[in-house]
Order: sequence, then C-alpha cells, then structure tokens
Amino acid sequence: MSGVSNYKFETLKVTSPKEFVYEVTLNRPDALNSMNKEFWYEIPACFNQISADPNCRVVVLTASGRLYTAGLDLTGLGDTLTFENDMDPARIALKITNGIRDFQKTFTAIEKCDKPVIAAIHNACIGGGVDLITSCDIRYCTKDAFFQIKEVDIGLAADVGTLQRLPKIVGNDSLVRELVYTARRFQSDEALSFGLVSRVFPDRDACVSGAIEMAELIASKSPVAVTGSKVNLVYSRDHTVQEGLDFVASASWNGCMVQTKDVMEAVMASMQKSTAKFSKL
Amino acid sequence: MSGVSNYKFETLKVTSPKEFVYEVTLNRPDALNSMNKEFWYEIPACFNQISADPNCRVVVLTASGRLYTAGLDLTGLGDTLTFENDMDPARIALKITNGIRDFQKTFTAIEKCDKPVIAAIHNACIGGGVDLITSCDIRYCTKDAFFQIKEVDIGLAADVGTLQRLPKIVGNDSLVRELVYTARRFQSDEALSFGLVSRVFPDRDACVSGAIEMAELIASKSPVAVTGSKVNLVYSRDHTVQEGLDFVASASWNGCMVQTKDVMEAVMASMQKSTAKFSKL
Amino acid sequence: MSGVSNYKFETLKVTSPKEFVYEVTLNRPDALNSMNKEFWYEIPACFNQISADPNCRVVVLTASGRLYTAGLDLTGLGDTLTFENDMDPARIALKITNGIRDFQKTFTAIEKCDKPVIAAIHNACIGGGVDLITSCDIRYCTKDAFFQIKEVDIGLAADVGTLQRLPKIVGNDSLVRELVYTARRFQSDEALSFGLVSRVFPDRDACVSGAIEMAELIASKSPVAVTGSKVNLVYSRDHTVQEGLDFVASASWNGCMVQTKDVMEAVMASMQKSTAKFSKL
Amino acid sequence: MSGVSNYKFETLKVTSPKEFVYEVTLNRPDALNSMNKEFWYEIPACFNQISADPNCRVVVLTASGRLYTAGLDLTGLGDTLTFENDMDPARIALKITNGIRDFQKTFTAIEKCDKPVIAAIHNACIGGGVDLITSCDIRYCTKDAFFQIKEVDIGLAADVGTLQRLPKIVGNDSLVRELVYTARRFQSDEALSFGLVSRVFPDRDACVSGAIEMAELIASKSPVAVTGSKVNLVYSRDHTVQEGLDFVASASWNGCMVQTKDVMEAVMASMQKSTAKFSKL
Amino acid sequence: MSGVSNYKFETLKVTSPKEFVYEVTLNRPDALNSMNKEFWYEIPACFNQISADPNCRVVVLTASGRLYTAGLDLTGLGDTLTFENDMDPARIALKITNGIRDFQKTFTAIEKCDKPVIAAIHNACIGGGVDLITSCDIRYCTKDAFFQIKEVDIGLAADVGTLQRLPKIVGNDSLVRELVYTARRFQSDEALSFGLVSRVFPDRDACVSGAIEMAELIASKSPVAVTGSKVNLVYSRDHTVQEGLDFVASASWNGCMVQTKDVMEAVMASMQKSTAKFSKL
Amino acid sequence: MSGVSNYKFETLKVTSPKEFVYEVTLNRPDALNSMNKEFWYEIPACFNQISADPNCRVVVLTASGRLYTAGLDLTGLGDTLTFENDMDPARIALKITNGIRDFQKTFTAIEKCDKPVIAAIHNACIGGGVDLITSCDIRYCTKDAFFQIKEVDIGLAADVGTLQRLPKIVGNDSLVRELVYTARRFQSDEALSFGLVSRVFPDRDACVSGAIEMAELIASKSPVAVTGSKVNLVYSRDHTVQEGLDFVASASWNGCMVQTKDVMEAVMASMQKSTAKFSKL
Repeated sequence: MSGVSNYKFETLKVTSPKEFVYEVTLNRPDALNSMNKEFWYEIPACFNQISADPNCRVVVLTASGRLYTAGLDLTGLGDTLTFENDMDPARIALKITNGIRDFQKTFTAIEKCDKPVIAAIHNACIGGGVDLITSCDIRYCTKDAFFQIKEVDIGLAADVGTLQRLPKIVGNDSLVRELVYTARRFQSDEALSFGLVSRVFPDRDACVSGAIEMAELIASKSPVAVTGSKVNLVYSRDHTVQEGLDFVASASWNGCMVQTKDVMEAVMASMQKSTAKFSKL
Repeated sequence: MSGVSNYKFETLKVTSPKEFVYEVTLNRPDALNSMNKEFWYEIPACFNQISADPNCRVVVLTASGRLYTAGLDLTGLGDTLTFENDMDPARIALKITNGIRDFQKTFTAIEKCDKPVIAAIHNACIGGGVDLITSCDIRYCTKDAFFQIKEVDIGLAADVGTLQRLPKIVGNDSLVRELVYTARRFQSDEALSFGLVSRVFPDRDACVSGAIEMAELIASKSPVAVTGSKVNLVYSRDHTVQEGLDFVASASWNGCMVQTKDVMEAVMASMQKSTAKFSKL
Repeated sequence: MSGVSNYKFETLKVTSPKEFVYEVTLNRPDALNSMNKEFWYEIPACFNQISADPNCRVVVLTASGRLYTAGLDLTGLGDTLTFENDMDPARIALKITNGIRDFQKTFTAIEKCDKPVIAAIHNACIGGGVDLITSCDIRYCTKDAFFQIKEVDIGLAADVGTLQRLPKIVGNDSLVRELVYTARRFQSDEALSFGLVSRVFPDRDACVSGAIEMAELIASKSPVAVTGSKVNLVYSRDHTVQEGLDFVASASWNGCMVQTKDVMEAVMASMQKSTAKFSKL
Repeated sequence: MSGVSNYKFETLKVTSPKEFVYEVTLNRPDALNSMNKEFWYEIPACFNQISADPNCRVVVLTASGRLYTAGLDLTGLGDTLTFENDMDPARIALKITNGIRDFQKTFTAIEKCDKPVIAAIHNACIGGGVDLITSCDIRYCTKDAFFQIKEVDIGLAADVGTLQRLPKIVGNDSLVRELVYTARRFQSDEALSFGLVSRVFPDRDACVSGAIEMAELIASKSPVAVTGSKVNLVYSRDHTVQEGLDFVASASWNGCMVQTKDVMEAVMASMQKSTAKFSKL
Repeated sequence: MSGVSNYKFETLKVTSPKEFVYEVTLNRPDALNSMNKEFWYEIPACFNQISADPNCRVVVLTASGRLYTAGLDLTGLGDTLTFENDMDPARIALKITNGIRDFQKTFTAIEKCDKPVIAAIHNACIGGGVDLITSCDIRYCTKDAFFQIKEVDIGLAADVGTLQRLPKIVGNDSLVRELVYTARRFQSDEALSFGLVSRVFPDRDACVSGAIEMAELIASKSPVAVTGSKVNLVYSRDHTVQEGLDFVASASWNGCMVQTKDVMEAVMASMQKSTAKFSKL
Repeated sequence: MSGVSNYKFETLKVTSPKEFVYEVTLNRPDALNSMNKEFWYEIPACFNQISADPNCRVVVLTASGRLYTAGLDLTGLGDTLTFENDMDPARIALKITNGIRDFQKTFTAIEKCDKPVIAAIHNACIGGGVDLITSCDIRYCTKDAFFQIKEVDIGLAADVGTLQRLPKIVGNDSLVRELVYTARRFQSDEALSFGLVSRVFPDRDACVSGAIEMAELIASKSPVAVTGSKVNLVYSRDHTVQEGLDFVASASWNGCMVQTKDVMEAVMASMQKSTAKFSKL
C-alpha cells in the first residue's frame, strides 16, 4: 500500500488501502498530531481534492503514533492573540471573528466532501479532535480511546463545531452538557452508550481494519447513490422533514439521479445474483 | 373481530379489535406485501379517512403473512422509468420529480393523520418499509425482525422519508449513516438499542397484542388531548422550542382546547377515582 | 450552609452549599411541591436574579420533602377556567392563550439563565415537573425516581415545555410518543436508558451530593466559557449547523470573549500545573 | 378560439387563445363568480391538470361577466358553520381546521402549478378574490378595478392566503395592515402604487389582451427555464439567500436542467439571430 | 376627552378620544420626548396593560410638543457605559448584552400588543424614534416630518429594532442601506415613496385626526378578527407561506375563532344593511 | 487618483478616489466587461482582500467603456458544457453543480465583504450583471441604463443570485416575475420605481461622482458601526425579527462593539460640534 501520488501534505498522509478507498492519516506523531497552522490549511485542501477525485469513494481518517490528536497546537496561539496595546476591543473582536471563520471552514470541508468519511480513533482525542470527528460521517474507536471537550479549560466556548454538531448526532442532551461544562474525560464505553461512536474495537489495528472493511462495502455501492445519501442526510439534519422531502424530490436529486446507469446496472445485477460494477463519478 | 365495513381496499384490511382501536393490515401476503401501484394510493386514502373517523382514536399497523414488507414492488418500476428515446434529461427529471412527490404523500398521510399510529413489525421490513414505519408514531417489533435501508443497493438515495425522518427519531447519527451507506441488514436488538423501535416482543402474536394493548390505553385518554399532543410533537420536531411554545399557546391549541368538556370530565374522574369517559371526536 | 440573604421567596429556598454554587429548593413539602400561583412568579424572579449574580456560577435544583413535585396545583385551576356564561369561545381562547404564555415564561427563565442548572430529582416528578426539568441543563435522579407526562390525563396537550423540549434532548422518538400519549409512569432506569437523565444515584442524599460535586467542578472553570457554552448550545439546538457556527464566530462570542483574562489565566495555570482562579462575572 | 376539450368544469372555462397559452375563466357570471363548493374543488383539479399538460406553458386567469369575483359564496356557509348543540368548542375547532386546510389547498394549487399564471382582473375583486390573485405569479387589472380584503367585516382573519402571501409580494407593510384592519376598498391606482398589480389597462378587453400578449412572450421562452424560474422564485421567497442558492445549484435544478437541449437551441438561435423553437415539456 | 384613569405614567399620557380608541402620547415635550430610563419601562407596562384592556381596540401613538422624539436620552447613558477599570471586555460585553435585551423588549411590547397601533408622527423622529415607529402597525406623518436613523453617528449599529424590522416593512433595500450607513435625514415625501409611512397630512392636527378616524373605522370591526389579523400578519412576516397557512388554520385561529358570535353578528348586519355591534374582548 | 498598488488583477482595476474610498472598475471594455474565467476568480479575491484592508471603508463598483457589463462570456461556455458521450446525466449533473457553486461564491464574496459596496451602473447591465449588482448594498444608475434578466433566453433559471436576492431587495413581486419570465429589457425609470436602484443620474460622470460622494459620507462614520450595520442587515434579511434582535444583542455585536473608542469619539464630537475622526479597522 503506497501513498496516492498527487496528494502531498506536511501534516497528512494519503494512501489507498483498497480500490476506491482512501486512508487519510494525521501524520505528525512527534507533535501528538496537534493542529498547527499547516493542518488548518491542509485539511480543506485535501478533502476538497478528494471530493472531486473519481478514484475515491470513501475515506478512512486515521492518525499515526501514540494517540489520535492532542487538539489545538498552542505554540502558535500566542501570536494570534497578541494585539497592539492601543487597539480597542471592537477592532480586535472583528479580527478574531475572521480567524475563527477560517478555522471553521477546515472541518466544514469534511462535512461538505461528497464522499463519506469514517473516523477510526485510537487513544486520546482531545479538544479540536472532537470538533474534527463530529464533522465525519461515521465514528469507530478503540477500547482504550478517550475523549475530552477541552475548551472551557482554556476559557473558551468550543467554536469550530463541537457545540454545533455534537448535540445533533447523539441523543442525550443532559450528558452532552455535562461533558461540555466540565471538560472531563470520557471513555470509549460511554462514547458508545450515548452514540458518539457506533463501534468499539480492541485495538488500533482492529479498528482501522474494521473501518477499511466497512469502507470497502460502501465503495461497492453506486457512488451516485452514496453521495446523494450523504448530501441529503446533511441537508435533512438542518431542515424540516417537509423541506428535506422537497429537496430530495426536486427535479434534482432523484429526479435527475434516477437517470444514472447505476440503477439499471444494480437492478440487473440483483436479478442475475451477480455483483454490480459502477462506473466512476 | 370483523372488518370495518366502510373501508374497502385491495392492499389493506381494516378491522377494529377494540373499541376506538383500528388495525390496518398490509394484506398482500403472496406478494410479500410489496408496495404496488394500488398501495401508494390506498395508504393515503385509508389514513385520510381514519383521520376524520370519530370511531377511531388509535391505529395499529400490522402485516399479514410471512414478513412485514419487502418494500417497493419492482414489477411496475420498468414502465415508470421508460421514456421516449429523444426526451432530454431535464424533461425526464421534471416528470420523475412529480412521481416522487406523489409517493412521498403516501407516507406523509400517516404522519398527518390526527390519530397516533403504532407499527407492529414482524420479520422483514425492507426498503420502502423503513420509510413507512418512520412515518408512524410508535414502533414495536418481534425478536426475529430485521430491517434494511435498501436504496443504495438499487442506485438511489432514499427519497420517500427514511433520509428525512430517521435521523430525527433516533439518537445515533454515526449508526444511521452506516446503515444508509451500506444497506446492511440490522436485527431487532440493534434497532432497539439505537431507538428505532421502543419494544421487542418474542413473536408476531405477542407484538400485535402488545401494540393493541398500548392502543387501548391511549384510546382511554381524552382524544382531544392525544390529537393535540401528536400535532404539537410533529410541529415541534421541525421548529425551534420558542416556535413550538408559541404554536401550542396560540389561541389555538390549548387556548381553544382547554374549553373541551374532556378537561372537566378528566378532573372529575380523577377526584372520584373513577374512569373518565370522553365523547367522540 | 445558610440561605443566601437577598433571595426571599415563599415557594423556593436558596442556599449556597459551596463557593459559586447555589442550591434552589422547591420548598412546599406539605403541598408536595405542587405548582401554585406564587411558584409561577417566583421561579422566573429567582432565576433572572441568579442570571446576573456574580456569586453564582452553577445552580442545583432540588426539592424538599417526600417527592420532587406533584406538578400543577389544581386548587387554583378552577378559577382560571371559570368564565362568564355568555362569553364566546373565541374570547375565552384569547384569554387562556395569554395565561399559557405567562406559564411558559416561567420555565423559559431557567433555560435563559446564564448559569447551568442541574436538576437532582428524587421520587415523583409528575406533569409540570417534567416541563420543569426539561428546561434544565443536566438531569440526575435517584433510583426510586419515577416520571409521568400527565397532561393527556386531564384532557390537555402539554403546553409549557415537555412537548417542545423533550424530543430535542433525548434520542428515542417512538418512546417519547408512547409516554406522552399514555401518561404512563416510567422509572429511573428507563429514564436513564433513553437519555432523560444522565446519572442515577441510590438515594436523595447521594443524588444531591453528586449534583453539587459536579456543580463544583463546573464552577472551577472559566465562567465566561461556561456561560458561552450554554448560550451556544441553546442556540445550536434551534438552528442549523452553519447558523450555529456563524453565531459563535460573530464578532460576538468568541470574537469578543477570547479577550477575557480567563484565557491567559487558564493557559498559565495549565502550563504551571496549578489551579486557575477566575474573577467573577 | 374554442375550449380545450379535456377540461370540463362547472365553474371554470378553459380555452387556448394562442399556442401554449391557456385562458382559465371564472365562469359563473350570474352568481358574480362567487366561490361555491364546486369552485373549491375545481380550481385545484384544473391547475393540477395544467401543471402536467405539455400543451400549456402559461395561464391567463380571467373572469366573465360584470366583475371579477364577489368572493366567498355565503349561501353554503350556513351549513358548514352549523354544529350539533352539544358539541364542545374543541371538537368543533378540529373539524373547522380540516375544512380550512382544504380551502387553502385550492389556492396553493395555483402557486404549485409548474406554469406561470397571470391574473387579468376587472371591476370588483373581493374577499377570497384577493386570496386567489395573490397566489398567481403576475397581476394586471383594469382602471375601474377595485379590491377589498373583506374578512374582518365578517368577523374572521383571512385564512386562505391573503395574510400569508400579500405582505411578501408588496413593499408597504403599513398600507397592507391598514387595508386588512379596515376592509376598506382600494382602487387600481393604489394597487399599482404599492405593487399589488404591475400594470393597469383602460378596460377589460385591453387587460385580457395585454395579459395574453405577455403570456405569448413567456411561452416563446424555454419551458424548462421558465418552470425552473417559477419553482426557484417560490422557494427563495420562503428561504434564506444561501438556501436558495444551494437549492438552485443542487445537482438538481441547473445541474440537471443545463443538460436540456433548450440551452443549445437557445444559443444557436441567438448566434443565428433566428427564433428558438423548444420542444414540449 | 379626558385621561383614562387607570393608566398613570410619567412619560406617557393615555386618553380615549373615541369609544374603543386610545391615544398614547409621548409626554415629555420639554425634553423633546427623548427616551429616558422611565420611558423604557413605561412603554411595555402601558402596552401590556392595553393588550388586555377590553375598552381598547385600537391605539394611536402621538407625541406632544414641538417634535415627535429626539431619540435616546444621552443624559443617563454615561452611567450605563461606565465600568470599573479592571473589568475585562468579555465581562463588560455580557453586562451590556443584558441591557440591550431589556431595551429591545420595550418596542417588542408594541409589536406583541393584541391591538393595532397607528403612529401619527410630526416633525422630527430621530434615532430610537425610528425603532419605535417600525414596531407599530401603521405609520402616518405630517408634511414637515423628517426621520434619521442616527446610530452610526454615535458609533453603533442600531440594536433595538430598526435594522431588524425596517427592511421587512418597506420595499427598497438599496435605499434602506443608504439611510442606515449615512445617517442622513429624509423627509416625509421620501418616507412615503418607499413605504415607511402610508399617508402624509398637512400638519399635526390633520395627522392626528386622520389617525383617529382610521382607528374608529378599525374599532367598528370585530375585535376578534382584527386581533387575529395582527397576530397572523406578524407571524407570517417571519415564517414561510406554508407555515403561515398552517398557523392560521390550526385548530387555533380560525378553527376556534370562527365560533365567535362576531361572525353571526357580522353576517346578519351585512344582510340587513345595518351596523354590526361586537361585544368587548 | 492612482491605482492601489497591492491590488493587481486582469479584469479589475482598483483605485482610491478619496481617503477610505476604493473604486473597483470592471475593466475589460473591449469585451464589454463580459464575465470570463478570470473574472469569476478575481472578484472574490479582490473583495476578500478589501474586507480585511484597513485603508478601505466603502467601495464603489463601476465599469469602464461603453456599457456596464454584457454578462456571462459565452466564449468559454462551450467547454464547460461539453462532456464525454457516454457520461450519464447524473454524473454530469454532479459536475455542473460544483461549477455553479463556485460561480455563486463570486458574488457572495461581495455580500460578505465587511465594507458597503455601491454599484454605479451605466448603459447596459445584462444577465450576470443583475446577479452582480443585487449582491451590492446600494445601486445607482444613469438615465440611459437598462437591465435584462437574461437567463430564460438561454434556457436556464438564473442561478447565481438574481432569483434569490432580487425578490428580497425590491417590493413588487408581480413585476419581478414578469421580468424574470420574459427576459425583457427595463429602463432606469422602471428600475427606480420598483426599487432596484435608489437614484438615477443624468450620465456616467454624474453617477460615479454621486456614488463617490455618498461613499465619502459613509467613510466619515465609525467603521465599526458601519460594518456592524451591514452584517446585521444581511443577517436580518434571512432571519425572523426576534432572531435578528438576539443576534445584534448577543455578547456580540453591540455588547462588544459598544466598547469601541468610536462611541466616545462620536459623543464628544457631537457635543463639541466638531467632526469625529475614527481610527482604522
């Protein structure tokens, strides 16, 4: 399994363990995969490229080294928060706002990527790491994994996705608030019980293998149908049921998508008990 | 227990196992209760009629034969997807869109029915079957029940309700996406654990009995209050908390409904430790 | 532990068991803490005062006596529902509407309070009690606790919060509807399994202690960050992810809040492995 | 100009004055085109049929006789508002609600019709008439036309479209409220100045001719583009700008629609200075 | 015309020039009716009282002295903006936010008042004055009236209603922005042409008389219908057309309201060509 | 007046006619300022840079040569619409969708730019030109200006802003639809009467001068207040009044912004009748 040649990043490694499956690896193990300046630019660059790449249908998001990610790299933060002495609070606030918006776009790029993303998390996933994984489609983790919504510990409300996405992907608001307000760690079993992850594996190898296996299964389906499902699930989360129905019906998704050759291919394969082969997106 | 005389359908059977409780049965066992052309028209016809029927306060939705439903009847699908050769994609898309809208209305009729609907599912519930049960109020199933969100297998995004309603009725987005993208089967225990069904029974008889028992309990309550609760729950799902509060307060629901004789009847019964008897809607 | 001197209410007792932690106690044990006329006015008065009180960072909401609350005090209800004989339904409805709006404001005051509120529930929590606790941030209960969404039993749709908030804080819509339509009791274990409460304790003492301990932990965090988190969680619940991201980024929350001294204090403490001390709000 | 043979209604007449242009005429002149029971069913039947009729691209909505419409036919209203003596206000309200919903569907059918509708109004347009014309796309009238939002005069809030649509199609909220609260008549010049109509003609003949001429112009454009524009305008009215942009971009409208042969036809015609000829929908 | 005895305010005078019509007068002519601390509390107190007052059906909002209002009274502002030296920007911001919310509630009370409010504006209407009148239902002014959206002149974005309401009540966004960004004065004729006011009178007397005359006309209509119309217009402004239709139909407004005796009274009067007399709300 | 040195574009020229005022000029007069590939990338690049440029407070958007813009450059369109023969409609649609999204971002960059943008339009403004100007804050034009919503003429629904923004900035829906469905030209006087432009000047020189003069006036105001006003106007357009009020109050805009030195500077200048001087953003 070698790297995919046209993906070159400092903080990320991209490989293709199976046909149509890419593995994106957080790749700064010595820095605990903390999120530095390059990371914030490379994640959207990488996922925008993948979104339009016909050789990829599913992504598995892993991390190298001892743990998944330690979250924000505080090293550079000092600069960002230093302002000239006589600047007034309003002007500073306007500048910070624009900075936060840029950070938000990093994780939104994963949510907007046309291909499903499966996070395979091992060991620690802290602070910005929770923002990261809540923008993925599916979350698996190892038994020794733990999570921490760290922001209140450094005097901040989480502002790049956790407060916005977490309550919409799990079903226990009371627990979400406890975790946000206390910044206490929680383990894989608690994460499983309230739905943050949907599967727990004994160790990193098993977790990554499990994620890749699932990715292969998804990659064998019509890519038009899978992309359509992702786009509609994201849309439905943020709209009324009626609006979701209108969106999927609009001369749009299925109106147009039904004309794909995948439908005929799938129906034929189903009748002949053979495996459907879909052309690339 | 005999059929309710003024409900005549080809694909559905309507009976009244208890006072104020109707049982609607998917009744094409030889065709595995697959959804054919008549089904799409009869479901809304049936539930619109029930919505205005003072003799019904709760519906139990069952199926006859070996399994609950095999989903879409592909037999007729060929015709629907055949267009003249020289038709351009835009014109085809406009036609398909209108077809999808009609299909969506079928299940929306269940959601809009003024009376709560309890699905009692046994064995297989596949494809359109999941769209069907997610438009019901309450879902019970048998231990041998299994479910399959089948659409990606035929090259489509689910477009008659599953993608729109399922994420709003369960609390595990990661699992929902796995099930949608893979079209894999899942069993009754997994359905219970992430909240798709709220009760599992040993077999079909127990499941239907359990659903009818629950229906009887609901039927003993003020029908004004139960209908009001359903309408407000559906409204609240798709609106902010403040909008939900405004809606229920509007000189509308409770403003007007509080004037029902049911309140006095209920308060009296409660004081006298007797059972309240409510007049029909 | 003595009462906080500037909080004087008939139906509530306010004490401060720990620095920055207030305990608000429903305090009409002889009347089973049922909700009378004073209660509806004192809850918003109390929580509005707390919202602006720099000595309070977290609230624990307990009840004195045998049970948590029996819900609405029906004693006064007779008057409210009595109208002159010749008044028409429309005029009555307009009056009732305004009354309901006032009642709704009572619980909304808890949701809008800038400080997190932890409900520590023991024994019975009935009717309006469920409306009350669903407006809190976090819910703990005792093993012997039971709950009842009582409204359909008195001919009403729940109109002061349960129908609007409950489905957004738990992840099992099928079960929510069953509980609403049947008004059946459910116990602490069921409440835990579908996420209404996030922790169960053996008895009242353990429950209140557990809640206060959690409150202390939250009170040790930056109050700017905790308030910001609560405001953004409430906002995000009712808006799309993108709107939630825009709100938290707006030259607003973090744009302005990042300038708090809490951030520097927290980062310093973290580097020096000491405990951060934050100034009052 | 003869009637279109497959459109048979009691209260409406359908003709085709020009290729691809239909004229629908309110045709109960002796009853002042007041809206009776048949009218409420025939309008949606007629416009649903037109929506799918490839021979129609634009509709002109006219009225025969002395005036456009006197609004609701009060003759039948007595029955609708008569209930058994002992029915309580809540049960009556539930019944009325369903009746109003049916009435609303009548005018919504015009808004949802895929083809633009131009109202050509002469003389009086009263009560339900204003609800009717606000569901059309374009409104022209004669110099002697006058309008009256009549509902407060009979003790009602307008409930079939005026209160909902009128404020979104004109730009003077102060005037809208004055007209609604007073039920006073207003003339064509006032209607023009605040944007209810966009053109005034000297008399009925000129008005109908002007509308038909405009309809011809629209009918000469790509029907895919015109229908797409209508659907997107209606969608945008009720959504944020960003949602409107997402909707029109979705692999939907233009993603799919751009593949129509109309684009090539239009570009070619434009280059050759000839007239484009589009195939039917 | 004497004062209404149970309305006692320092900054406002309340009289009843006609049956069912109240005139509320800004009554600090020596201070140019500028908005001081009392004003912010008295406006909501007054309009909440009016909302429930059966003797009032319409309000005319006038001002005494040379001009309508000079806007915010800057005298007290110094205190509000003074904070202890060592307070950090985040804590100050939280305090200011709560202050702004209180100010917003002042004008929202006018919008929420069940009775229509007609502003009769003469001479200057500056700053907060524009926020004030945009929360009214109908706006008339004198020929010598001028308006100024003053906020950018004092370094602020308008935060008590102008930015939020003005663009929704007029139809010229380009002009609204010019007026907001430049804080330039505009005269009655410009106000009329873009729809801020709907009528211009030669002088204060004519303007107040015209407003009262219009109020009388409204007061002669069914108060149930007028209140219903206001509530539905406000609701529709902020919702989609479909939501507006659902709201008005809900067993609510017209479902319940149709049962008012006003309908029968109105229909009878209409048939007998007499004047309907409606009972009080 | 010389070019601003750090703005280098092929299709745009950037100059600074007055302190804090930038003029951005569409600068391909020989190609009638039609929108080519470079244009779509340079507009967002330019306006993103301006948004963060402390030397600019207001932008005037002009065009060089005979007319304002001929709209989309059809030259390159052929390539974009050419797909391999065997590609299916669904896959083509997915590709086109992404292309449209990129085009939409071009104009959204103007709307999101923190500084107000005044369009000064002369002669023809066609097709994409209308999308362009509707994303500006303020629109002025010359007497000889004419506009054309061109899209239906080439078989498309307008998909980069006109259908979404135009109905929200003018107050005559009937006319908007006529213009969209017919693609007919309309002149400056009609544009003025329905609010598309707010001022008409005799010729290009007068129009550009008028726009610059207005820009100077805006540039003399507090830049914190002006930016805050723009952000809140855009937010309010797409939200309810209550949400707009919450947004502006949030510890955000004015909570934080009120702390700017601009307020004190403005109040002081006002008292001393001098001109306030605000520091750069």
